[in-house]
Amino acid sequence: MDDLPLSFADIVGACDRLSGHVHRTRLASSRLLDERVGAHVVLKCENEQRTGSFKIRGALNRMLQLSGQERARGVVAASSGNHAQGVALAASITGTTATVFMPTDAPLSKIAATRSYGARVELYDRRTIMPASLVEAFAAATGATAIPPFDDRAVMAGQGTLALELLADSGPLDAVVVPLGGGGLLSGIATVVRVLSPRSSIFGVEPADGDDWVRSLAAGRPVLIDPPRTIADGARTRQPGALTFRVVSRLTDGVVTVTDDELRHAVRFLAQTMKLVAEPTGALAVAALLAGRVPVARGGRIAAVVSGGNVDPEMLAAILADAPSEVAG
Amino acid sequence: MDDLPLSFADIVGACDRLSGHVHRTRLASSRLLDERVGAHVVLKCENEQRTGSFKIRGALNRMLQLSGQERARGVVAASSGNHAQGVALAASITGTTATVFMPTDAPLSKIAATRSYGARVELYDRRTIMPASLVEAFAAATGATAIPPFDDRAVMAGQGTLALELLADSGPLDAVVVPLGGGGLLSGIATVVRVLSPRSSIFGVEPADGDDWVRSLAAGRPVLIDPPRTIADGARTRQPGALTFRVVSRLTDGVVTVTDDELRHAVRFLAQTMKLVAEPTGALAVAALLAGRVPVARGGRIAAVVSGGNVDPEMLAAILADAPSEVAG
Repeated sequence: MDDLPLSFADIVGACDRLSGHVHRTRLASSRLLDERVGAHVVLKCENEQRTGSFKIRGALNRMLQLSGQERARGVVAASSGNHAQGVALAASITGTTATVFMPTDAPLSKIAATRSYGARVELYDRRTIMPASLVEAFAAATGATAIPPFDDRAVMAGQGTLALELLADSGPLDAVVVPLGGGGLLSGIATVVRVLSPRSSIFGVEPADGDDWVRSLAAGRPVLIDPPRTIADGARTRQPGALTFRVVSRLTDGVVTVTDDELRHAVRFLAQTMKLVAEPTGALAVAALLAGRVPVARGGRIAAVVSGGNVDPEMLAAILADAPSEVAG
Repeated sequence: MDDLPLSFADIVGACDRLSGHVHRTRLASSRLLDERVGAHVVLKCENEQRTGSFKIRGALNRMLQLSGQERARGVVAASSGNHAQGVALAASITGTTATVFMPTDAPLSKIAATRSYGARVELYDRRTIMPASLVEAFAAATGATAIPPFDDRAVMAGQGTLALELLADSGPLDAVVVPLGGGGLLSGIATVVRVLSPRSSIFGVEPADGDDWVRSLAAGRPVLIDPPRTIADGARTRQPGALTFRVVSRLTDGVVTVTDDELRHAVRFLAQTMKLVAEPTGALAVAALLAGRVPVARGGRIAAVVSGGNVDPEMLAAILADAPSEVAG
């Protein structure tokens, strides 16, 4: 695998670099979840990570490698929210300034949070503008360093540190199931799992209305899709990254999709039975397990990543409002 | 303190008995919470306990001491919800049958959950009937054993096991803040804290519309109040217990109250910034800290118990619906 753009050593290096800056998040489990899935499931609670998602790992790993001169010129990023918050907090930790382009329809709480960490936020219309062009233009004009949301070796390596913690804490696993937007998290996790637990299956989960990965894997190359309308705002990517596509297509066992209704059900399930707040994107893997979309060996051991918890209170209220009753485990 | 109805040894015994049956729940913390409170706060997450609240500890400790003959005759309890679920699950663990009287206005999710654990649920009108009379009549007619929600040595001892875990995990504490309904939890915790951490302050928190403890402590004896209308359904007790009043009045540093609006704010804060689902009663202690009702030494170390997470999705939705934005730590 020497020709892949990400190595296990990159992730071990990131782990050293991030030490003391990010939380080692817990694993959660529930008897009722196990019953519903027909296997023992552990959830990696990155919704409880600093900034409310795993994105701080990759952004900070990238930014801790900036030179003094680069820090003086600042950083720039585009993101629907969690990467924005990661970049904003990482800028505050590393002593640099961040400018973040966010889509006008990003969750208000994510925009407010990004500002609260001290970043400058600029809004753009996701239907007409490709964010990469904004970042490129800003970087060219100001000398700022672009911090990509996923298609970057240091960012992927940072996200992969989650898997080192997971495998250390979980015991043997038959499968690892991961929310999938641009593929940075899945690339990092797959790189670790292939080395440390080579017999575990690895699955990505994306929204059905936002299935750029399923189509790209079928086509054998990254395919551009129309702007997705899914409630999973963190997985509205229109195209896999060039680097992440190479890693995911080589190292994982497949990508499955879930509907928005299945996502809502998963968010409700996590709140009611596990007292855990997840955003729809963060619940992708749990939704796929609850909907039976992942091939699961009866009685097996599965890890699912809950990748984020930054849901607008209004959206969470709407999701909970017509909920059928569930019982705590 | 030899004349108190609960001893430290009772709680150590309960801890042995409960081992393997209940979760050792985690402590959670958040930089934003620390900032808001002006002290380092650790939360004991009993919302993630089996059945979604601490109540399983006391009910199970009591029921593990039933004789074979008593188990054959079954148990009976009255509860607005969390004790009901605790008794129901404890009955299933100990192989006995449970009948539970619940008020007609108990959260639907709690009624459904109690039934799902296999208990028989009978509803009564909280405005006109004192539940103790129902339990007494049923016990007399059937020979079933009554499992009191709080005013019982074995129940208080079971709840106190939470504090053994808390003190082992938290490090030194300046204060411990505890939701207060009937006083079983506070009695158990205070008994442990007075022995293991005698210099820590201990405070109970009850709803302002349900201030039977504040009035009773002022009067020097348990006082009966009108049926409270607070959203903290687990703290709608109308009168402290005879036993819990003796323990709480002797061992704690005081009881403070919070309004329903302060409870709603705390539930929102926990969901948005800590990704943690708490029921209003479960958020009493956090609400008191956020509202500045507890005397806190600047920069001190405080533990607050999040005692339960069984909130109806409709109520949680209503609480979240008009929430101002908060940021994850």
